[in-house]
Amino acid sequence: MLYKTLVMPTISQRGEACPPSPIRKLVPFSDEAKKKGIKVYHLNIGQPDIETPANVLEKIRTTDLKVIEYSHSAGILSYRKKLAEYYLQEGIEVNPDQMIVTTGGSEGILFALLTCLNPGDEIIIPEPFYANYNGFATAAGVVVKPIASYIDNGFGLPPMQAFEEAITPRTKAIMVCNPNNPTGYLYSKDELGLLRDIVLKHDLYLFADEVYREFCYDGHVHHSVMNLEGIDQNVVLLDSISKRYSACGVRIGVMISRNKEIIATAMKFAQARLSPPTFGQIAGEEAVNTPKSYLTNVLAEYVKRRDLVVASINKMEGCFCPNPGGAFYAVARLPIDDSDKFCQWLLEDFNYEGQTVMLAPATGFYSTPGRGKDEVRISYVLNLTDLRNAMKCMEEGLKVYPGRK
Amino acid sequence: MLYKTLVMPTISQRGEACPPSPIRKLVPFSDEAKKKGIKVYHLNIGQPDIETPANVLEKIRTTDLKVIEYSHSAGILSYRKKLAEYYLQEGIEVNPDQMIVTTGGSEGILFALLTCLNPGDEIIIPEPFYANYNGFATAAGVVVKPIASYIDNGFGLPPMQAFEEAITPRTKAIMVCNPNNPTGYLYSKDELGLLRDIVLKHDLYLFADEVYREFCYDGHVHHSVMNLEGIDQNVVLLDSISKRYSACGVRIGVMISRNKEIIATAMKFAQARLSPPTFGQIAGEEAVNTPKSYLTNVLAEYVKRRDLVVASINKMEGCFCPNPGGAFYAVARLPIDDSDKFCQWLLEDFNYEGQTVMLAPATGFYSTPGRGKDEVRISYVLNLTDLRNAMKCMEEGLKVYPGRK
Repeated sequence: MLYKTLVMPTISQRGEACPPSPIRKLVPFSDEAKKKGIKVYHLNIGQPDIETPANVLEKIRTTDLKVIEYSHSAGILSYRKKLAEYYLQEGIEVNPDQMIVTTGGSEGILFALLTCLNPGDEIIIPEPFYANYNGFATAAGVVVKPIASYIDNGFGLPPMQAFEEAITPRTKAIMVCNPNNPTGYLYSKDELGLLRDIVLKHDLYLFADEVYREFCYDGHVHHSVMNLEGIDQNVVLLDSISKRYSACGVRIGVMISRNKEIIATAMKFAQARLSPPTFGQIAGEEAVNTPKSYLTNVLAEYVKRRDLVVASINKMEGCFCPNPGGAFYAVARLPIDDSDKFCQWLLEDFNYEGQTVMLAPATGFYSTPGRGKDEVRISYVLNLTDLRNAMKCMEEGLKVYPGRK
Repeated sequence: MLYKTLVMPTISQRGEACPPSPIRKLVPFSDEAKKKGIKVYHLNIGQPDIETPANVLEKIRTTDLKVIEYSHSAGILSYRKKLAEYYLQEGIEVNPDQMIVTTGGSEGILFALLTCLNPGDEIIIPEPFYANYNGFATAAGVVVKPIASYIDNGFGLPPMQAFEEAITPRTKAIMVCNPNNPTGYLYSKDELGLLRDIVLKHDLYLFADEVYREFCYDGHVHHSVMNLEGIDQNVVLLDSISKRYSACGVRIGVMISRNKEIIATAMKFAQARLSPPTFGQIAGEEAVNTPKSYLTNVLAEYVKRRDLVVASINKMEGCFCPNPGGAFYAVARLPIDDSDKFCQWLLEDFNYEGQTVMLAPATGFYSTPGRGKDEVRISYVLNLTDLRNAMKCMEEGLKVYPGRK
C-alpha cells in the first residue's frame, strides 16, 4: 500500500525562476565547435589570462599547516587587519570589526540581501547589470527593479528622476557596480553624489560592488561609496580579490559596513556557514604585499586591449562601442536582429579560417525584456594577438550573419 | 532639504530571526576566561585536533598554478570523477553529472533548500539537530518542524507516528544527519527503511547529511540514503570532506542527487556564485588517495576518546550519557537548572586548578523551547590527556554549580 504510483515532489518556484547564467549558457555550443576542430576565442567570461602575483602563489606553496582548521567566521583577524591597511592605501578608513570576509564577492551580495531586505522588497539596479545579481536576488526572494542606462552616453548613471519613478514603498536598496560590469563605465564623483542624495532622501541602503576599483583608465580616479558623507549607516561595500590579483579561484571577497547592526546580523548567516576558505585567506593576506609594479603592468596591458577592441569595433560597419573608463568589459551595439541568436550562430554555423569568437549576449544583463538584443558584452581578457584574431572573426561574422540588419 | 533628520533603513526580519550559533555564542566568555589566565578546554566545537593527511598538505604545496582560475561551477571534472571512485568504494554508485561540488557541506544545505522548497514550506527534522540548519532555513524562508528524539534511547529515530503527526500540506522534505551531530546516533537499516516509507508515502524529499559516514564504531556499518530503493528521485545527499580528512578550512563539500531536475536547478544557483574554491578541490581530489591506515588510526583514536568521555560522565553523580555509535559528539544529561547558564558559569565563575571546560548548551540544538535545558553537547575532539582534564573540570564544576538540581 505504501508503494503507490510515484508522484514526485516538485522543484521550488524560485528554482524555476532563477535565470541560467547568460555568460555560461552557450558553453555547450562552444564545446561542439571545439569538437569540430574550431579555435574559439573566449571573450564571454571575465576570467583574465593575467598571472596571479608570484608572491601569492609562493605563499601558498610555503604555508606549513598541520591541520586545515575552520577560521573565524568573519575571517582570520590578521587578514582583516591587513585588509584595513589595503583600504587605507586606497583612501578608505575601515577597521577589522566592520568587515566580514566572504567566499568570493558573491557571498557578500547574498549576505547583504538577506540582511537588509525582506522577501518581496525591491532593489533598484541600473541596467545592464552583472547578471548573477539575479541569482542572488532570486535566492533571497528580493525583486530587482531595473532602471535604464543607455549605450549612447556610455551607460552613465540614470538621472535622479529615473530613480524617483522606480521607488515604491517596498524599495529598500540601490545596487551599483563601479567600475561597471558589463559596461566598463566608471561613475563620476557627481554621479556618486546623486546616489548619496537619493539614498538619504528615501532611507535606502546603498550596495556597491567595487571589485574593479583599481581598473580605471585614462587618468580617471575611482571614488568609493565608503567616502560619501553622511551615509555610513546606509552603505555596504562588496569587494573581492578575484580580479585585482587575478585569483578568481581562491573565492575570497569581503563585505564591509560601518553599520554595526548590518555586520552583527550578517555575522549570523556567516556563522551558519562556519568560515571562508583558509587558503584563499592566506592568499589574500599576502596579496596586499604585491609590488605596485604588478598592477601598473596589468593596467597598461588592459588599456592596450581596450584600445584595440574599441577601435576595432568602431571601424566595423554599423557597429558602436563606447570607450569604457574602467574594468575589462565593453558593451557594443551591433547591426543584428538578436544577440542570443548571433552569439550562438558564431559558435554553431560560422568560422573564419578555422576560428571563431564567443561573446556574451547582452540580453542576459538586462531585466527589461527586449533590451540588449542588438548588444553584446566583450571581456577583453585575452592577449593582443588573440584579441586581434577574435576581432577579425567578429568582423567577418557580421558580414555574413543571416540576421544582419 | 535633502538632508532631513536621519531615518535609518531597518534590518530584515529574517536577519533578526536568524538565531546566533549556539556553538560560538559563548566565545566572548571563553576569551575573558583566557585573559584571566585560565586554560579552557574546547569541547564546544567540532574542530578536530587530528592532522590533515600529509599527502593532501603536500599536494597543495606542490601544485604549480600560474593563474588561480574559476573552475567549473559544478566543480573540477577530474575531482568529480575521483569522488565517484570514492563513493563506489563506499558502495554508492553515482556519476560526476549527479554532483555539484559545494563550498563546504554548508552551501549544499542552502542549495538543497532553495532548489526543493518554496518560502513557507516545511521541513521535518528530528531534534536535537545541527544548529546551523536553522540559519540556512531562515535564509531560504523555510520552516523547520522539529520532531522529538530522546536521550533515554540514545536519540533513535522518532517513530512513524511522530512523522505522520508533523506532516502538513506544506511539508516538502525530511532532513537527517547520520551519524548524527549533535547526538552521535547512528541510524539502523530499519530506521532508514522507515524514512524511505514515509518519503514515498507522502511524496517528500529526503535530505541526508552524511559527513560523518566513516565515523562508525563498535563494528557498526553505515547505511547511506543513496542505497534506499525506489526513492532515487527524492534523495539529496549532502557531504563534506571537512571531518573525514580533518580539513574543515578547505570548505569543500558536495551535493549529490540522481534527480536530474534537482541538479539542473541547483546548478543555476551554483553558476551565480561561479565556482567552489580551487585549492580545496585540489585537496579534495588528493584526499581520496589517502592511505586507509589514516582513517583506521583516526577511528581508533576517536573510540578511545568516546569511551573516556562516556565512562567519565556516567560515573558523575546524577549524569547520563548514552554511548554514541558514530561521529565525534555526545549529548549528556546533567543535574542542572539551565545548560546555557551552566556553560556560561563554567567560563565566567569557575575554574579547577586554573582550568575549565567549554561545552555547547544543548538548547541551541532544539527548536522546541525548553528542551535541552539539562543537556550539553560534547565534541570529543581533543587528545586523551586534555579530555581527561576537561572531564575533571566538568565533574568538579557540577559539584559546586549553584544551579545544581
